[in-house]
Amino acid sequence: MELAFPAQEFEARLTRVQAEMREHQLDALLVTSPPNFRYFSGFDSQFWESPTRPWFFLIPAEGLCTAIVPEIGAPLLKGSWIGDTLSWPAPCPADDGVTLLAGALERLPKRFGRIGMEFGRESAVRMPLNDLFLLKERLTGFELVDGSPCIWNIRAVKSAAEVGYIHQSCTVVCDAFDKLPGYARCGLSEREIGQRLTADIILGGAHSVPFMAAASGWGGYEQIISRPSGRTLNDGDILIIDVGATVNGYFCDFDRNFGFGQVPDAALRANEALWDATDAAIKLAVPGTTTTDLWRCMSGVLEKAGAQGYNVGRLGHGLGLQLTEPPSHMPGDNTVLQEGMVITIEPGMEYAPGKMLVHEENIHITASGPQILTRRAPRELIVIGR
Amino acid sequence: MELAFPAQEFEARLTRVQAEMREHQLDALLVTSPPNFRYFSGFDSQFWESPTRPWFFLIPAEGLCTAIVPEIGAPLLKGSWIGDTLSWPAPCPADDGVTLLAGALERLPKRFGRIGMEFGRESAVRMPLNDLFLLKERLTGFELVDGSPCIWNIRAVKSAAEVGYIHQSCTVVCDAFDKLPGYARCGLSEREIGQRLTADIILGGAHSVPFMAAASGWGGYEQIISRPSGRTLNDGDILIIDVGATVNGYFCDFDRNFGFGQVPDAALRANEALWDATDAAIKLAVPGTTTTDLWRCMSGVLEKAGAQGYNVGRLGHGLGLQLTEPPSHMPGDNTVLQEGMVITIEPGMEYAPGKMLVHEENIHITASGPQILTRRAPRELIVIGR
Repeated sequence: MELAFPAQEFEARLTRVQAEMREHQLDALLVTSPPNFRYFSGFDSQFWESPTRPWFFLIPAEGLCTAIVPEIGAPLLKGSWIGDTLSWPAPCPADDGVTLLAGALERLPKRFGRIGMEFGRESAVRMPLNDLFLLKERLTGFELVDGSPCIWNIRAVKSAAEVGYIHQSCTVVCDAFDKLPGYARCGLSEREIGQRLTADIILGGAHSVPFMAAASGWGGYEQIISRPSGRTLNDGDILIIDVGATVNGYFCDFDRNFGFGQVPDAALRANEALWDATDAAIKLAVPGTTTTDLWRCMSGVLEKAGAQGYNVGRLGHGLGLQLTEPPSHMPGDNTVLQEGMVITIEPGMEYAPGKMLVHEENIHITASGPQILTRRAPRELIVIGR
Repeated sequence: MELAFPAQEFEARLTRVQAEMREHQLDALLVTSPPNFRYFSGFDSQFWESPTRPWFFLIPAEGLCTAIVPEIGAPLLKGSWIGDTLSWPAPCPADDGVTLLAGALERLPKRFGRIGMEFGRESAVRMPLNDLFLLKERLTGFELVDGSPCIWNIRAVKSAAEVGYIHQSCTVVCDAFDKLPGYARCGLSEREIGQRLTADIILGGAHSVPFMAAASGWGGYEQIISRPSGRTLNDGDILIIDVGATVNGYFCDFDRNFGFGQVPDAALRANEALWDATDAAIKLAVPGTTTTDLWRCMSGVLEKAGAQGYNVGRLGHGLGLQLTEPPSHMPGDNTVLQEGMVITIEPGMEYAPGKMLVHEENIHITASGPQILTRRAPRELIVIGR
């Protein structure tokens, strides 16, 4: 298996999470989801696309980990830094790893009687719940509890190598966006432009493009979560494309807006207000600021610019091995920014009914000030075919 | 929202699933996973990449459905064929849709007192389990039970329009594979070849390439689940690339093998045995044959050719809105093939220690015989730079 990091990176993650586990009184963490399996083991596979076989990664309170995986995965994991690899012939609908897993859990020292799983916010368990209920019944002396705070606490702070991959991904996508005004024009569809952009991102060196949302409309758009559609671009339109591409699993997540022809003045002014809101928040993005401070700062600028509403619910978030990770820049979140966090700054607003605009940049929090990982969008909207 | 099918397609799915639900004594189905949400609602979003917000789709025993979604998604769903759309301002960590969902469930007629969820084989629930446990406590007079057999039963049989999209996806990827011998050569890495192939697939009209596995080695490979790596191709190597690309969400899933330079004779012979196994299974792929018959047929050919083992656990599977879907061609599965099913025929073997070869084609089961959706690989291995 080609690992994206040296073994020391994974050993450091293990040390950090085991310290969190002691604080949360967990005897083990049992992870099942692709991003957490990858984060702790280093193991990547596109095989996650197949829902047939569950995969388990067991992190004990002390010592090395155990991967409990279908036979198809065992050759990749054996001989890695992990510790032990157990496997079973899968698929095996009658017992897809449950007995093997229960046995491995029962052999763990029972200090607290608690095993953490991905039960909490922004988490999901990737195994059939029938199997989870069966596992629960089989365990004697262990309770299955929420371990997600442990996981998110350590994932939130990135190593230099992790930031490096996010930065690489941002750069590839910036380069691809730079080419867009060379081919985009009125009469092309969102889908045609998105195809070309995706090909440029892949040929530029990103490993995958799991996320590309696009929307367009006269002077703004109504939503920001659809794939590029067959809608063709017309005079006065603004097109947004929001891209999550990866390098070694690490996402960038930012958007760019492009005007076409005679864009209405109100849209140009709203666009500049969004740039100003982004700018103000970036300046604030230093250790000690809270996510709620960031939200308040952006909201203030947008309200002055005449914001009429917004249905996204937050103005930015963490990112890393997932397109979005905690925290969220919103009222009540109050997460204190720390050195090593990577976040998006993502102000958006409806400046008129049905006319939304959204900006987004990716920022690394450092002791010496915000490091902008994206190449900053220009304040003035790029307009094609004016 | 641009739907990939006319409303009648979704109404037909609803009628079929409601009949299954009566048989399984369910008052409702509650789905949370992207493929099932998409299958029943028609709604697609790349927004599933963000784990922050849960989405719910509620199918009652009778009548139209209710989407219960974060505000960010509501504009896309309102006005569609669905029925009702309820939304809440999300993210809202204190109550991310749970109260809204519990209310909608409680208003349902309680005939059986059972609500089906995605608890079974090849299924996962996409919501924090803490929220699921809370929901369970809140419900009076409803049990949450496994509804996945209902769902898989109806998803297994595809409409003509669904088969059309799978066929389109197969064709785009076949066209892209045809170009590969024009640029692949010894000295290039798996990753460089995979990049070019991905770009061709996207520019050829696929909407995404969620799956691309590649492996290579002298005379065969050790595994088939890694992304294309930095390994460069050498004389005597065989390269496999296995692609799952989508058109309107519908996957193709097939591989192609390419030799480089002087490929060992034993590998060429093993390759032809795999072609023969594929051929024999395709001929058998008619209504009434079982998946276990298919497995037995392929195993027989491979054993005669000297198969020494195989860690994949099955020799093909269903496909559709997911890269792999039930059934599995393996001992004990015994699913009877029906008209409208789409399956892969995927024989593989180790013909020598650490030397694996795998073939794969996609087949539509029809009353008038198997329809091959891929363009059949040639029996003789394509060898580049011989």
